[in-house]
Amino acid sequence: MLSPADLKTRIRQGQHRGHTTGFAPGLVQGNVVILPAQFADEFSLYCQRNPKPCPLLARSEAGDPRLSMLGTDIDIRCDVPRYRVFRDGLLVDEPSDISDLWRGDLVTFVLGCSFAFEEALQADGLEVRHISLRRNVSMYRTMIETVPAGRFRGPMVVTMRPFKPADAIRAIQITSRYPQVHGAPIHFGDPAAIGIADIARPEFGDPVPIAPGEVPVFWACGVTSQIAIEAARPDFCITHAPGCMLITDLSNSRLSVI
Amino acid sequence: MLSPADLKTRIRQGQHRGHTTGFAPGLVQGNVVILPAQFADEFSLYCQRNPKPCPLLARSEAGDPRLSMLGTDIDIRCDVPRYRVFRDGLLVDEPSDISDLWRGDLVTFVLGCSFAFEEALQADGLEVRHISLRRNVSMYRTMIETVPAGRFRGPMVVTMRPFKPADAIRAIQITSRYPQVHGAPIHFGDPAAIGIADIARPEFGDPVPIAPGEVPVFWACGVTSQIAIEAARPDFCITHAPGCMLITDLSNSRLSVI
Repeated sequence: MLSPADLKTRIRQGQHRGHTTGFAPGLVQGNVVILPAQFADEFSLYCQRNPKPCPLLARSEAGDPRLSMLGTDIDIRCDVPRYRVFRDGLLVDEPSDISDLWRGDLVTFVLGCSFAFEEALQADGLEVRHISLRRNVSMYRTMIETVPAGRFRGPMVVTMRPFKPADAIRAIQITSRYPQVHGAPIHFGDPAAIGIADIARPEFGDPVPIAPGEVPVFWACGVTSQIAIEAARPDFCITHAPGCMLITDLSNSRLSVI
Repeated sequence: MLSPADLKTRIRQGQHRGHTTGFAPGLVQGNVVILPAQFADEFSLYCQRNPKPCPLLARSEAGDPRLSMLGTDIDIRCDVPRYRVFRDGLLVDEPSDISDLWRGDLVTFVLGCSFAFEEALQADGLEVRHISLRRNVSMYRTMIETVPAGRFRGPMVVTMRPFKPADAIRAIQITSRYPQVHGAPIHFGDPAAIGIADIARPEFGDPVPIAPGEVPVFWACGVTSQIAIEAARPDFCITHAPGCMLITDLSNSRLSVI
């Protein structure tokens, strides 16, 4: 296992272009959205109005690649393993460095990621099924509409983790401590009640089996912001590639409010 | 509405012999168990081993009718609206004063009661169905065995309150703050998973309807202690009559750990 410092160096040098799940345990990882300033205030408002799917950890000044509230030495132009570059809503590139694309009007947003609460669930002895199975978490588009802000709008996307009811109660307690990484679930049980037609066929990620006696528990998911960005159709946008997160200097336990 | 002081005076004088639900809002009410000293250590251990159904708020010294940790002027011989007196396991009387039965070897136990967390649920805007319907809460014997202590043993009894999943999640958060009044639920959903054959037919209390889209949520219940006392068969025992609780000087909010 690489030390966090070595991992960050490798990422910055373009030598680690893969996902960051399980890397740098204990440190907060974040979803990254970079937008032109003319979209920044609306997106900021969208996050503020939808804190469960879009918990805003940090927003940079326009043109400033640093994020001093998340780390002393972050340069958002090279500290994400792999980026996605969108022009007029179309994915045009997946570079490991965006220095040549940087502009004075770009604003960086970092949203909380569920890795922090999953680490807390596992530390408590709960099994997080998709991690045990080495799969991606199951994600579903729901019929729950987020609160729009300007051009940003759309349905809430959720992740699903199956638990026995007693473990689900414990998981609700633990994740409630982490409002900045989606917090408590928004639903459990009947998938149809939130507009999920077939629990066995997630729209994003991998299928995760639900054992007899378990119930699906649903948390708000950061992919919600991607759907809202698709709706807003900014002419230019950069995000992290799925699973390839920004690693911060903050410890996960610092996100716990209790 | 009587002031708490007037209510306490009326109870002490035997003029209020009924239940205390909804009286003295904001003040902690307690379940009362009075046992001979030769049973006290075992019962105390039983409560300690089963804190969710039997959260011990206070234990008196043998023969001492005061409970200074719960109120400055409590006399347990006359401050409960109605008592139940058991001899060799049989209910023999329901007096409003037990001064003439008092003995130097009697030890008083006061266990937390769910009124405190129900008040917190309602203050948050959640509907507590049995209260809306002016019924007693539904209670069920489960197949969950408590941890025995000496002669005290038996199944856990639970209360049931129906909620929509999102409200159930909120109710789990709120009741988690109140470990001294049963705390978080122990189960939700499938009643059969904890040995409840027919949710429509509670073993104690009243039936409470579950609406479409709601799930039953189950909390550990203080009646568990009564089942354990039946198993122990003390030659002498006094309890409060159902719903006729001891009113303390403590505020409900003082029970909240967060």
